[in-house]
Formats: sequence, C-alpha cells, structure tokens
Amino acid sequence: MTLQGTSIIGASRGQGSESAGQSINPVSNEALEPNYSAATSEELERAVSLADDAYQSLRNTSGADKATLLRTIADNIEASIEDLVARMPLETGLPEMRVRGEAGRTCGQLRMFANLVEEGSWVDARIDRAQPDREPLPKVDTRSMLRPLGPVAVFAASNFPLAFSTAGGDTASALAAGCPVIVKAHSSHSGTAEIVGLAIQKAVADCGLPEGVFSLVYGSGRTIGQALVKHPSIKAVGFTGSYGGGRALMDLAATRDEPIPVYAEMSAINPVVILPEVAAEKGEALGEGLFGSLTLGVGQFCTNPGLVFIHADSASSVTGKLVELVNGSSSAAMLNAGICQAYGSGLDHLRNHADVELLASGSCGDAQNQAVPHVFQTTASTFLASDDLTEEVFGPATLVVTYTSDDELAQLFGSLGGQLTASVHGTDDELASHSGIYSLMESSAGRLVFNGFPTGVEVCASMVHGGPFPATSDGRSTSVGTMAIYRFTRPVCWQDCPDALLPDELKDANPLGIQRAEV
Amino acid sequence: MTLQGTSIIGASRGQGSESAGQSINPVSNEALEPNYSAATSEELERAVSLADDAYQSLRNTSGADKATLLRTIADNIEASIEDLVARMPLETGLPEMRVRGEAGRTCGQLRMFANLVEEGSWVDARIDRAQPDREPLPKVDTRSMLRPLGPVAVFAASNFPLAFSTAGGDTASALAAGCPVIVKAHSSHSGTAEIVGLAIQKAVADCGLPEGVFSLVYGSGRTIGQALVKHPSIKAVGFTGSYGGGRALMDLAATRDEPIPVYAEMSAINPVVILPEVAAEKGEALGEGLFGSLTLGVGQFCTNPGLVFIHADSASSVTGKLVELVNGSSSAAMLNAGICQAYGSGLDHLRNHADVELLASGSCGDAQNQAVPHVFQTTASTFLASDDLTEEVFGPATLVVTYTSDDELAQLFGSLGGQLTASVHGTDDELASHSGIYSLMESSAGRLVFNGFPTGVEVCASMVHGGPFPATSDGRSTSVGTMAIYRFTRPVCWQDCPDALLPDELKDANPLGIQRAEV
Repeated sequence: MTLQGTSIIGASRGQGSESAGQSINPVSNEALEPNYSAATSEELERAVSLADDAYQSLRNTSGADKATLLRTIADNIEASIEDLVARMPLETGLPEMRVRGEAGRTCGQLRMFANLVEEGSWVDARIDRAQPDREPLPKVDTRSMLRPLGPVAVFAASNFPLAFSTAGGDTASALAAGCPVIVKAHSSHSGTAEIVGLAIQKAVADCGLPEGVFSLVYGSGRTIGQALVKHPSIKAVGFTGSYGGGRALMDLAATRDEPIPVYAEMSAINPVVILPEVAAEKGEALGEGLFGSLTLGVGQFCTNPGLVFIHADSASSVTGKLVELVNGSSSAAMLNAGICQAYGSGLDHLRNHADVELLASGSCGDAQNQAVPHVFQTTASTFLASDDLTEEVFGPATLVVTYTSDDELAQLFGSLGGQLTASVHGTDDELASHSGIYSLMESSAGRLVFNGFPTGVEVCASMVHGGPFPATSDGRSTSVGTMAIYRFTRPVCWQDCPDALLPDELKDANPLGIQRAEV
Repeated sequence: MTLQGTSIIGASRGQGSESAGQSINPVSNEALEPNYSAATSEELERAVSLADDAYQSLRNTSGADKATLLRTIADNIEASIEDLVARMPLETGLPEMRVRGEAGRTCGQLRMFANLVEEGSWVDARIDRAQPDREPLPKVDTRSMLRPLGPVAVFAASNFPLAFSTAGGDTASALAAGCPVIVKAHSSHSGTAEIVGLAIQKAVADCGLPEGVFSLVYGSGRTIGQALVKHPSIKAVGFTGSYGGGRALMDLAATRDEPIPVYAEMSAINPVVILPEVAAEKGEALGEGLFGSLTLGVGQFCTNPGLVFIHADSASSVTGKLVELVNGSSSAAMLNAGICQAYGSGLDHLRNHADVELLASGSCGDAQNQAVPHVFQTTASTFLASDDLTEEVFGPATLVVTYTSDDELAQLFGSLGGQLTASVHGTDDELASHSGIYSLMESSAGRLVFNGFPTGVEVCASMVHGGPFPATSDGRSTSVGTMAIYRFTRPVCWQDCPDALLPDELKDANPLGIQRAEV
C-alpha cells in the first residue's frame, strides 16, 4: 500500500501544513518515506467537532452494534497484516514475528471488548423499584447504569506500535464504552499508525457509523497533543509513555476550566524479590528466567524487571547464571534514537555511581541504536542512601540489590514509588513465612506476581495493568483487560422514568437478558 | 453532655492553640459555648500518622468486622440523639424533626454500608484460572479485587450536619472500603461534630480497632484543611461545599508530588423542565410541588430546583399557584450568616438584572439570618444572552425561564454546566415525543427525574448523587448510595499466588460465599 502521510479526519484525509517528520529506521538511521504532515488546527477542530457529533449517536449505539464495529476493526487489521509486516519492522526495528504476535494481541483485545459489550452486563445495571407504600415517605423508582463520557484523546505509545497505539487497548476500550476516539500518532511509527488508522476508518464506514467515531492526527505533542487535551469537547485522555509526558498532560488537564481524567501509564521499575531458600534451590533457573524477562523486546516493556532484591547470602546463586547469559548476549536495535540515547544515559549513571558494580554486559553489534544488556549490583544500604537509583532505565538493564534482613527488605520496598508490578520468588515455606512482605507489595503495585517475572501481561477480566502513582496517573484504573472500559464511563440514574423511555439495559422486561442488581 | 471544644485525635483529645471560634446560633447571632481550639500541626501530624498505622490493619479487617464498626457507630449516634437534639438546632437553626430525620438517614447509611461489606460481593472479585496447556503460551492464574486506597480526608458540609458531615456518606463509605478517615469539622456546627465524633471514637474502641481509624480536627480550611490535602499519607479527599472551596482542593491535590483524587460535590441549579400540556393540565399541582421542593430545608439542599424551564404559553398555569404560595410564605433562618449574606447577594443580582422580573416573595420574620422565598422570571433569549444567570443562588429562590420552541429548550440545556439533576414534567404523550431532550438531560446531569422534583435523594444501590463538572469534581462518582464506596478503592491483581496467601475473597473455595466472575 502507498502511504499518504496525512492525518485521518473522520472519513477524509487532512492536508496538513507543517511537517511532522519522517519515520526513521532505527537499525540504519535512514529516513522512511513519506514525510508526514502535522494536522492543522482547523483539521484538529474538525476531528473534534465530528467526534462530538458522533458521540450523540455512538452513546446510544447498541452493544451488538459496537461489537460489530470492534470485530470489523480487528478483521480489517488482519487484512492489512502484510502491509504491517512490510512497514513496522522498518520503523521500529522489531522482527516480523513480533508484528504478527502483537497484531494478534491487538485483534484479540478488540474482540474481547466486542464480547464484553455484546453480552452487555458490564454496564452495572442497578434497579431499585418504587415502594409507594413505604413510610414515612414513598420510595421512587431509581435505576442506574454506566454511560460513556464523551470524545476521548488517545496518545499512542512508542513501545507497542499496535497493542497500545492506534487500535490499542485505550482505543478499543473507549469505543466499547461508546466514546469516539481521536488518536495522536507516535512519530516513531507513523506508517504503522496510518495502516491501522485506515483499517479503523474503513470499519467505521463498513458499519455505517458516523465518521467522527475515529480520527488519527499527526503532529507534535506540544502543539497537537496539548491542543487536544485542552479542547473543551474532549472528556478523557489515555496515554502510555514517559513520566514527563504523562505528568505534563495530567497538569494540563487539571488546569482546564473543566478538569478531565487522564489515564497515563508512565514508568515502573517492577521490583522482583528473590528469597534466600529458593535462590539456593533454583538459582540457575531463576537466573535464566530473569535474563529472559529482562531482555524480552530489547527490555522495552513497561513491566521490565529493573530492580531485583536478593538476600546477600544467596545472591550469587542467581547472578552466576544471569552474568553468564548477559555476558554471552548480543545487542539489538531499540525503537528509536531518543530511547537509545536515554538508555545510554541511564547506563552511564549506573556505571559512574561510586557504589554500584557492573556485573555483566553483552556485546555490541554494528547496526545503529544498539542496546546492550547490562546487569549492575549494589547493596541495600547504598540503594537506601541514594535517591537516584529508583529511576527507570528503559531498556535491557537491571540492578541487583542485595539485602541482609527482612527489615532491610521492607525498607527497600518503602523507598519505592508506585509500580505496575511487584514480584516475589520463594519456596512454599518461605512464602508462607514472609506474610509481612505482601502488604508492602500491595501498597507498591497493581499486580503481585508469585514465582514469576513481570513481563507478559495477560489480557483478561482480572488483569490490572496500573498501579499507584507514578506507575500510572490514576491507580484506580487499568489499561489492560476488560476493566479498562470503566475508565471512560460514569453512572447515570433514571428516577421514575416511564419504561418505554429507559435504555434497554434498564427496562422492566430486561430485553437484553443482562445480569442486573434488582430490588 | 459537656462539650470540650478540642479535636479528637485517635483515642485522645487535642489541646489546640489557636482558636477555631465558637458556633453561632443563626437565629439570634449569639455565640455558643465552648470556644473551639484548632488542631495544631503536631496534632494533625499525629492524626495522619495514626491513620497510616491503622490502615495497615483496617485494609485487612474482614467485611464482617467492618460491618460491626459501622453498626456500632450508628448505635452510638442513636444513643447520643438527645444530645444532638439539644445542640444541633442551636447551631444550625434546623428544627428538632430535621435532627431526628437526618440522624435516621445517617444511621441508615452506615447500616447500608455495613450490609454491603458484610455480604462482601462489592469487591468485584474476578478469577481467571491458569491454562497450563494453552498455545502458544500457557496462561497464568490471575485474580483481582478492589482494595482500599489509604487514609482519606473528609470535609464536612454546612448544610447536612449529620448525613454529609462527621459520620456522613463520605466517612461511612471510606470506612466501609477499609480506609481510615480524618474529618475536618465544619465551623458552623462544631458541637454537633464533636458529639458525633465522640460516638465514632467510642465505636472504634468498642470494636477493638486501632485508634487511628478515625480523627476529627477543628480549624480553618486554609490551614488545617490544606495541610490535610497536601499530606503525603492522605490518599483521597471527600468534600461537600462551594465551588470555590472544592476547586481549591482539586487544584491543591493536582499539584501534589503524588496527585490524589478529590471527590467534591460543589454546586448545581438543577434545571426542571415543564412541558406545555402537563403545565396546562396540572399547573396548580406543579406549582405546589415546585414550591415544596424550592423551600424544603430553607432551600439549602444541593438538589434545590434553582431553574425552571416552562413553555411561555403555559407558564402562568404553573406560576399562578407558585406565586400565590411564595407570596404567602414566611422566612426562616439559614444555616449561618455567611450563607445568608451570599443568598442576599444572589437575590440582589437577580433583582437588579434589567430583564429579570420579580414574580413573588414571601414575608420576612424578625429573627436573624432570615431567608425569604423568591421567584423570578425571565425569557430564554435573556437567559441565553446573559452569562451571569447560571450561577447557583443557594437558598429558597428559583428563576423561571420561559421558552417558545423545542430548539430554544435545547439551547437552554446546552448553556448549562454539569448538574446533579435534571428533571422533566410531561404527559405520557409529551414525554414520548420529546426524546431529543433526554440526551441533553443526560449530558448535563447525574440523575434524571421524570415527573418529580429533584429534592429527596434516595440512599440506595442505584442512586447517583454526582454529575459532570462543576456539579462535582469527578462525574464518574456518586457521594450517595452504595456506589460511593468505589471512590476509595483500586483494583489489585494476584498472579499465580498460592491459595493460602490469597485474600479470602479470592480463595478457590470461596469461603465468604460471595458473587465472583470466574473463568
């Protein structure tokens, strides 16, 4: 397919004026055609105005029809898979297998939300019937359900060009809720965004829905991104990226005349605790597991294990194998030059830290923007005395921190900000006797992993991919799994409403056959 | 009982240093004993530190034990009812019947949350079991449920000294969720706060829970209130009051190093639409109903109907009776001098507006701080051309706006900010043929009332007492009804956790017998 390099504004294409740049092949630093045009402020205004119009329709679109839209988007993405396989590796350095795998996950997410809204019980319908004879006052009939907030702005992530981008979890859950979406494309994979954006544009048309259900805009975060978040018609924001970027959007949204929710998934170092007995028993396997988790996707996952707490007495049981594997490892290209430079700075910082030891590093290949796996080690006392060792180093590096007592382990946890995950490895006996640590893990994180590593996020009803600030802007939410839909809803109550005027979900006869809480 | 006039800091009492003033009898402007002492910063620090400690215990307290706490609080408030009847009318000008009624509602709320957490299914337990044979990758076991956020700061409301104050809906729902509470007392009813605060303090001791589960601090919003909201250990805020006060807390919370959610219920004018046929058919009854809703509680309810949209052709059918009743009405004391002065300013503003007509006003009694019922009238075109007629006038005043077409009615709705409620009166035929209006009502409000008036908020599972900004800071929430508990929770996921280490709600055997979503 020939990429046009312009924004998708409802059913039409933007013209743009200023350049939004070309995608760069990180392996070669070569610029890829075409040159993308940033959306103009008029184009942005049109996208928002179309979204506003579409909301009036989409909010009252049935779950069945929303399911059809989501499935059609998935079908259209699958129909574009060869285009994605041709383009996405060039833009991202990611291999074909990853493109196919991530496309599968993306389409799986869309179909999961389709099933959720088709079944329909997710709206949390509650019915409290009238009690005309109640004393001292009769009770009115009240019924409530969740309703969509309005148009949503989604900021695509660099590290998941499909699953957390144009048709990713934020878009899928917002559409499922009944909210039109305007995606701000990530400049790192503009072509991938265009291919997926066209698949969504076509699906909206295929389903006969208003064109404003979806738009995709190119341009910088500072201009287009901020204009989107400030627009009075935008009612919520989804974002996956850096702490700096996420916090800037939070601050912007909080100072609007009408503040709106920002769901930003920002940064985490995902501590992994390895208790002494299990380290002694299974040190080699743990070293292998840690190496695999650490280097998966060139370490560019939000759930990358950036911090490992191991008892000093048994640390070498694990690090022995880990060091061997890291020393034998090779570099791979990162997603873009900016991420690679930041990784380099993070490594320098650890390398130059007086009391941090470099345990192992892999070998560096010839291509551009190479990330070399690294393992560092320090002691708990150094870690606790430093306030600069808790920053995320985004890439295949981890810091092993040796501790000498359970008290020290508790202090290590207490020194951390909010995390997406916290993991613990232990024998059955160790886990049973370390109950104090679970409250610490729970206070720190949204997902608690037992005898496993944090990478690999299941897309299911019970997944929580969120966590206390600053892992996310809003620890009450998840960006993965069916619960993500609740981010874009609010409850509405109908009092003494004639049955015929109620939404189907709340009608006496329960025509949709959904689960309801009725009194 | 003898009031001490000091803060309640866990199991002990504060000493205070600066004065937080005396409560004033609004009917006489006489100051009531004792003089209250503001909490010192050390006392506040101690309250927060105790709350932090108590959270470690309360988060793991069973639903059954939390239910016992909530019921004991209700019992203890009932045991103090004669003290409340002796004190609250002096502080608030509200009659004894209201004290007994509001105490009943307050205890009813506490017992409603007790039943909710005792039953236990509210935690939204989700279980996705492992699928070790899944291809291409095995599925891990993941289980999630809602968990408490941490210590919560609650700001008491002036207009509900019991139901939205010390042991009101915010406190009840936060404790039910497992969050310790620190209440900032409202200076307008310090004695009522102390009586209720002691009932809670005793309940915490009666139940053998850590003293930090509850504290009550006196002092100004600017010092004690802001210090509470800025404290790193406070994880959420509940507030009921003015837009200015609520927005200040929102802004403060948003600029913390770790931003936290603020649930502020702020201001609403609660539009009521009266369609022409029903006005012609039932004008007199509607006039009576409106008068009753307008003057209930001296117009000092968040759901007071401050705005009435009536078709110009049939407006007089309704206003005829309304004017008669308002002209024959008498004044009553407002809650405090500040509220009464603000009401006077609001009336002056309407009285001095060139194109707003005074239709009726009641007579003014001799006592202090009297609010006289008022009805004003204007046209839709004036309303739409003025940007100063949508401000809440807190008290027994309403503005009737006559419109001449459904388009104009739609414009009127479009000109409003978020509301707690939107009401419509119509015949069956009128309601069936005005479907366009329901989307407007839904966009504007959290609760849609059919052929009724907005005052009277049922405390039940389907109630939504919330609405788009600026009615509340966060339209995704309600401060009344069982859904209020969700404000103080976040989901947490356990992955591959040994059964014995899981919370009871997620154990395989489902020992609590709660409803769960299991796959």
